[in-house]
Amino acid sequence: MRTLIVGGDGYCGWATALHLSERGHEVALVDSLVRRHWDLTLGVETLTPIAPIGRRIERWYELTGHKIDNFIGDITDYPFLQSVMRKFEPESIVHFGEQRSAPFSMIDREHAVTTQVNNVVGNLNLLFAIREFNKDIHLVKLGTMGEYGTPNIDIEEGYITIEHNGRSDRLPYPKQPGSFYHLSKVHDSHNIQFVCRIWGLRATDLNQGVVYGVLTSQTAIDDLLVNRLDYDQVFGTALNRFCVQAAIGHPLTVYGKGGQTRGFLDIRDTVRCIELALCNPAAAGEFRVFNQFTEQFSVGDLAAMVQRVGEQAGIDVEVRHLPNPRVEKEEHYYNAKNTALRDLGLVPHCLSESLLDCLLQFAIRYRDRVDEAQILPTVTWN
Amino acid sequence: MRTLIVGGDGYCGWATALHLSERGHEVALVDSLVRRHWDLTLGVETLTPIAPIGRRIERWYELTGHKIDNFIGDITDYPFLQSVMRKFEPESIVHFGEQRSAPFSMIDREHAVTTQVNNVVGNLNLLFAIREFNKDIHLVKLGTMGEYGTPNIDIEEGYITIEHNGRSDRLPYPKQPGSFYHLSKVHDSHNIQFVCRIWGLRATDLNQGVVYGVLTSQTAIDDLLVNRLDYDQVFGTALNRFCVQAAIGHPLTVYGKGGQTRGFLDIRDTVRCIELALCNPAAAGEFRVFNQFTEQFSVGDLAAMVQRVGEQAGIDVEVRHLPNPRVEKEEHYYNAKNTALRDLGLVPHCLSESLLDCLLQFAIRYRDRVDEAQILPTVTWN
Repeated sequence: MRTLIVGGDGYCGWATALHLSERGHEVALVDSLVRRHWDLTLGVETLTPIAPIGRRIERWYELTGHKIDNFIGDITDYPFLQSVMRKFEPESIVHFGEQRSAPFSMIDREHAVTTQVNNVVGNLNLLFAIREFNKDIHLVKLGTMGEYGTPNIDIEEGYITIEHNGRSDRLPYPKQPGSFYHLSKVHDSHNIQFVCRIWGLRATDLNQGVVYGVLTSQTAIDDLLVNRLDYDQVFGTALNRFCVQAAIGHPLTVYGKGGQTRGFLDIRDTVRCIELALCNPAAAGEFRVFNQFTEQFSVGDLAAMVQRVGEQAGIDVEVRHLPNPRVEKEEHYYNAKNTALRDLGLVPHCLSESLLDCLLQFAIRYRDRVDEAQILPTVTWN
Repeated sequence: MRTLIVGGDGYCGWATALHLSERGHEVALVDSLVRRHWDLTLGVETLTPIAPIGRRIERWYELTGHKIDNFIGDITDYPFLQSVMRKFEPESIVHFGEQRSAPFSMIDREHAVTTQVNNVVGNLNLLFAIREFNKDIHLVKLGTMGEYGTPNIDIEEGYITIEHNGRSDRLPYPKQPGSFYHLSKVHDSHNIQFVCRIWGLRATDLNQGVVYGVLTSQTAIDDLLVNRLDYDQVFGTALNRFCVQAAIGHPLTVYGKGGQTRGFLDIRDTVRCIELALCNPAAAGEFRVFNQFTEQFSVGDLAAMVQRVGEQAGIDVEVRHLPNPRVEKEEHYYNAKNTALRDLGLVPHCLSESLLDCLLQFAIRYRDRVDEAQILPTVTWN
């Protein structure tokens, strides 16, 4: 399968590219590298020293003989996207290529507008490109579990059947996103659903949970293939950030009460979920939504787990509850469905102490690269 | 009340500005005049010769002694918007200033992107400006009934209580918008709801139906105050377009079966609804949604009414069913609630044969200005 990976230089995109390449997909990456630029402008850096995109791809080829095509450019630039479509002729497109940080989108007006315009326009361009070049292309789009917010009822996979005043309909699940970033993903979902209906496109919207871990069986084989690992307040996410904090003896930064519950998954499951979606494409005209996470945890639970694993490794880990920089419920009902990907064959890597220990040891290896000034949250919601 | 009307040169905006000005509001308009530019680029023109914005405002002052401030510029330009906020210091903002045509948004990729970026960024800028200058400002934002689509259950006003697996929550009503334009309004609604929650802003989202009519008691008093009346395939809407078609002996263009049912209202009720929303502001932190229409009709019903009124006026009116350029259900359940504005005191002008006759005679007065080439739909959905 000829698979185009938009955002292939990123945390999930890079791991997915190598996984699919090994599994026999003909893979091409598209990336504007703007994420590396945003890191520079914010003065933050991945824990791991990641090689330039060209060097990464070259090394992968040297080690495995698998070739990955590489298109540097921005999908918000439609003529560029057209040239990629002409040259590569993808059968599937995996779209990771969006600004993906909630705090980034909340910095100020400029970052909010940048996030929504970048994400909405890039996604619209992909939809128009699919329509222009090959309506049979399967779009696999990364959404987020954060689109749903924390409703007081079970979270279904994209749709809910509502009985109301004696009638019934299956409707899009109501969304209550919690940042300008999460909002941009809701906008995308609505746009994609619409074009599936009017143009007959086929799309899978993967509402992904918080991804943790860093190594996959492909990125682990060589230092030049190492994946990024973000621990800073803007791009770092709960579990990964905690492991890095533990590794340097920094208190784990739990925002507020820590009762915030979310769906989580191992990055090794991310790459497998994408593969499963690609191998079982949506039908023409179908807008399919999968909730892509394997387990639910509260932030407080995760901090306690990292603390325990730290102790076992002889590290004293403190948990610190900070004033919550976000506006969100800190104690709430949360029960989200995630059976669709299991039904397609996903066998989850559940979170274990051994994985946490492995992640902690990985963080310790790179701990000299940590800039402690990037850890505490300064971006607030109000 | 100091009321800023964004999009004050438009069909609803102009009528509202004069109404509020007469009712004692201190009114300022903001308009980029891009709608007049879009008319030029598409080669379409309002049926009525509308005066330049400055001349309209000047004439209103000459006739009534009411002064209206006038800011020409684009709210997607934040420094411009800041300067308006500083100079006028509004207490309320009515936001009509968006690209408002579904067919315009469906012309091609460029028009889809223009519509969504223009509408989403302009609206985001207003939200940030309210936060920056005065969080107490009441935002009255024009949405559309088209955000809901045509679900098989009753349409509520913005929210619906869902019972699911033994639990219950009041959630945003699921949206199924039918064009890139309608999608932009859904994006806006989500963005506004979010900032009400996190910043405590106060907003009323008016999901307006299809507006018909042209004269209000203010625009009727002088030819220089006349409102625009669109009949072309891009900006013309069902009932107004039918009256113009009848006036020139053109068959009424019903798309498909004509069973498409929508909410409608008289422009004299539009201006009154805005006034009611302004005089009864949302609470701090409240995101309030009103469905702003007075009656439901199917497109076929409206065509039949215009045909009947035409006959009475001695005009032979043909109804022609065209292949539907849109992708939409042509027969469907439709029952939308609209009690909130009535509860605030709205006494509707119901659609009558005398109003239709009046609109028909108005169209006849200007019929020499009609360009028949602009009537038949060429913009299609797929």
